[in-house]
Amino acid sequence: MSIKDANRINLPESEMPKQWYNILADMKERPDPYLNPATNQPAKPEDFFPIFAEELARQEFATEPFIDIPEEIAEIYRMYRPSPLIRARQLEKLLDTPAKIYFKYEGNNTSGSHKLNSAVPQVYYNKKQGIKNLTTETGAGQWGTALAVAANFFGVPLTVFMVKISAEQKPYRKAIMETFNAKVIKSPSTTTHAGTIILEADPTCTGSLGTAISEAVEAAVTTPDTRYVLGSVLNQVLLHQSIIGLEAQKQLELVDEYPDIIIGCAGGGSNLGGLLGPFMRDKIQGKTNPRIIAVEPAACPSLTRGKYAYDFCDQGKITPMAKMYTLGCGFIPSSIHAGGLRYHGMSPILSKLYHDGLLEATSVFQTAVFDAAVTFAKHETILPAPESAHAIRTAIDEALKCKESGEAKTILFGLSGHGNFDLAAYTEYNEKKLTDYAPSDEELEAGFKSLPVIG
Amino acid sequence: MSIKDANRINLPESEMPKQWYNILADMKERPDPYLNPATNQPAKPEDFFPIFAEELARQEFATEPFIDIPEEIAEIYRMYRPSPLIRARQLEKLLDTPAKIYFKYEGNNTSGSHKLNSAVPQVYYNKKQGIKNLTTETGAGQWGTALAVAANFFGVPLTVFMVKISAEQKPYRKAIMETFNAKVIKSPSTTTHAGTIILEADPTCTGSLGTAISEAVEAAVTTPDTRYVLGSVLNQVLLHQSIIGLEAQKQLELVDEYPDIIIGCAGGGSNLGGLLGPFMRDKIQGKTNPRIIAVEPAACPSLTRGKYAYDFCDQGKITPMAKMYTLGCGFIPSSIHAGGLRYHGMSPILSKLYHDGLLEATSVFQTAVFDAAVTFAKHETILPAPESAHAIRTAIDEALKCKESGEAKTILFGLSGHGNFDLAAYTEYNEKKLTDYAPSDEELEAGFKSLPVIG
Repeated sequence: MSIKDANRINLPESEMPKQWYNILADMKERPDPYLNPATNQPAKPEDFFPIFAEELARQEFATEPFIDIPEEIAEIYRMYRPSPLIRARQLEKLLDTPAKIYFKYEGNNTSGSHKLNSAVPQVYYNKKQGIKNLTTETGAGQWGTALAVAANFFGVPLTVFMVKISAEQKPYRKAIMETFNAKVIKSPSTTTHAGTIILEADPTCTGSLGTAISEAVEAAVTTPDTRYVLGSVLNQVLLHQSIIGLEAQKQLELVDEYPDIIIGCAGGGSNLGGLLGPFMRDKIQGKTNPRIIAVEPAACPSLTRGKYAYDFCDQGKITPMAKMYTLGCGFIPSSIHAGGLRYHGMSPILSKLYHDGLLEATSVFQTAVFDAAVTFAKHETILPAPESAHAIRTAIDEALKCKESGEAKTILFGLSGHGNFDLAAYTEYNEKKLTDYAPSDEELEAGFKSLPVIG
Repeated sequence: MSIKDANRINLPESEMPKQWYNILADMKERPDPYLNPATNQPAKPEDFFPIFAEELARQEFATEPFIDIPEEIAEIYRMYRPSPLIRARQLEKLLDTPAKIYFKYEGNNTSGSHKLNSAVPQVYYNKKQGIKNLTTETGAGQWGTALAVAANFFGVPLTVFMVKISAEQKPYRKAIMETFNAKVIKSPSTTTHAGTIILEADPTCTGSLGTAISEAVEAAVTTPDTRYVLGSVLNQVLLHQSIIGLEAQKQLELVDEYPDIIIGCAGGGSNLGGLLGPFMRDKIQGKTNPRIIAVEPAACPSLTRGKYAYDFCDQGKITPMAKMYTLGCGFIPSSIHAGGLRYHGMSPILSKLYHDGLLEATSVFQTAVFDAAVTFAKHETILPAPESAHAIRTAIDEALKCKESGEAKTILFGLSGHGNFDLAAYTEYNEKKLTDYAPSDEELEAGFKSLPVIG
């Protein structure tokens, strides 16, 4: 039995990448610069120092293609990495497709998702700088859990602003963060100015990621020795997440494969942005030409229905502005939508790649996503996170197209996390209570009104 | 970097064992035979045919040391096996111990525990025999989940009798079983005679594993083409679970190690019984002499405080009788006890090994178990199942003894599952609501009164 016959393609720990890959180095045109909201002028690393650890602020602007992974970070990575690349043989059989379907599975760690890949370095660089407290926000809870695990590991106290509706829908997410010593505050809260204003306008507000970010940033900049950390969107996050794609590339090489199609779910873009790295590099350099597809929920369609414009990263309009595909920082996805992927914008890097035609995007409805999730679970025996299941939906659709055309394409998708904390949503699905939803044009127009007007 | 420096010792899929190991073949004295309750005479395989698939009934009596794993089963095993053997380097560092601590981690599959190892063959042999429905019971939910995954995979409908208090404490366990198409009934229920009698005596009864077994067995024997499957206790289960120990032995060989101490939690005995196989074989054959330790909860101490006697496997007294350490089939552990490991008896094989001095046993209180669980989670970034954390508790205690004595012992423990579905119990622990409990001598005496009087 050769490794080509295996389901799981394991990479030895000794083969774990020793550097992250920085796609900014290879983009022919880089994303437009962040703007300082006080001046509307391009932001410099120093402008981020009050918010982020200095090394992380510098990584935000880094232009070298490879950046060393410090040993202190690698040591923790090696507790759960390299993550497996898995051939979905049972799913292929079910679909009766000539396509070969591989997925890179990031759910085999306590935080349950890829988010730990960026949580570890973000805490590390803060700790190294002597930062005494960290703040963050979390929506579906994956990032908050990952950061709680990492912060506890390095002994840095952490406060998590958790979107109120998520905290209520997912009490166990809160419990696991607390088990790892994090302090969890439901957002909007009265602990911040930003939260207080939102609650005064609407005391029943169930929160949004944008609001939680505002609160977490405010708590960081108004508390001594405190910094904010963000689990997606940023260049530094895509840098750290590049380990996903770098490993996947090595693993595919072990079985002499190269993907024709690469698929990832996209909320803020951290998972897909990490998965696509080395493949997008090849594509930019003209060595290969894979299709690379971002899958977003129809309920929060920043790439497929948003505007490519400068916007704030938070609802409270206190962060620097980024050029990105966005629904407007005031956009709040309907609570009909059960999963994560609720951010109003999209990573500036992914936005630029999409704008330049290097990245495709598609949106899917949630019942179709849960159909795919349950089909996958039943045949591959992994229960996916609803977010990750967006990628499964599109992978299945592409594999079925291969069945029609008879093409034996190689499909790689990112299975960014498990769904063990999402059983409330699965119960809704099982009980046929999930319905589909996409914002109307009027709802989108209302969101666009929250876009800043630049000087 | 050599594999000796790695955290995870992965075994290639091609090295996955092709046979299970049957410890019955090597025991100098075998457990006393099962008794047919109608005649008090030793049961034969045929006596089990109304309850179990014939091949499984035969495995219950098998005497050959190795039994081939059919390819249809190996194909599913390979979706999640070989499971990783992990060196707990961060825990070692924290404890500042010269001991080397390895754990075999069985939580990396959707069912979340080792239970899938026996669920797959049990469904397979039933399917092969043309059985159309399966019934089982579940307490903490691991077995029910595993069986739901396996039954769905082979397309065999499954009814799970879930201990009522567990179903209420763990709604998401019920949800995941339903996601995999299982029908979940809270036990005791009025769907069976056994359940009805218990409810008539006590309408507020919150259930026990013994009662749920009675209901599941009754449903199997009174429904056409239906069989019962059990996730622990039985010889066939230990046989299937032997893949844990066989893999662990190979993995330890890769790093030139042999365990001085082997530790597993023990409820019915499936996890420890699987882990110890090849090491117990060596010990019986005089080749090595490792200490092998069963860890049970103080709340349900069958080995450490039970009687070695014939008892029914269920509360309703309809199953064959087994000679085992037991608290009496009428014993119901206090609901103060938050985790699983609630079965009144212990696997006849483990009972005999304990009786013959080949196996040690210890019992631990639950707050000490959760202390160990949280310490482990924080340093090894895996949240353990409370059941599995019993083994962690004792592994830590043994590693601390090594620190005192300066001995660099090699400790192997079984981490049988993850705790992602046990956050309600972790919340109780975090909120300091968990208390310790052990039955009084009077409570034990009351349990022993339910023991059958033989001949």
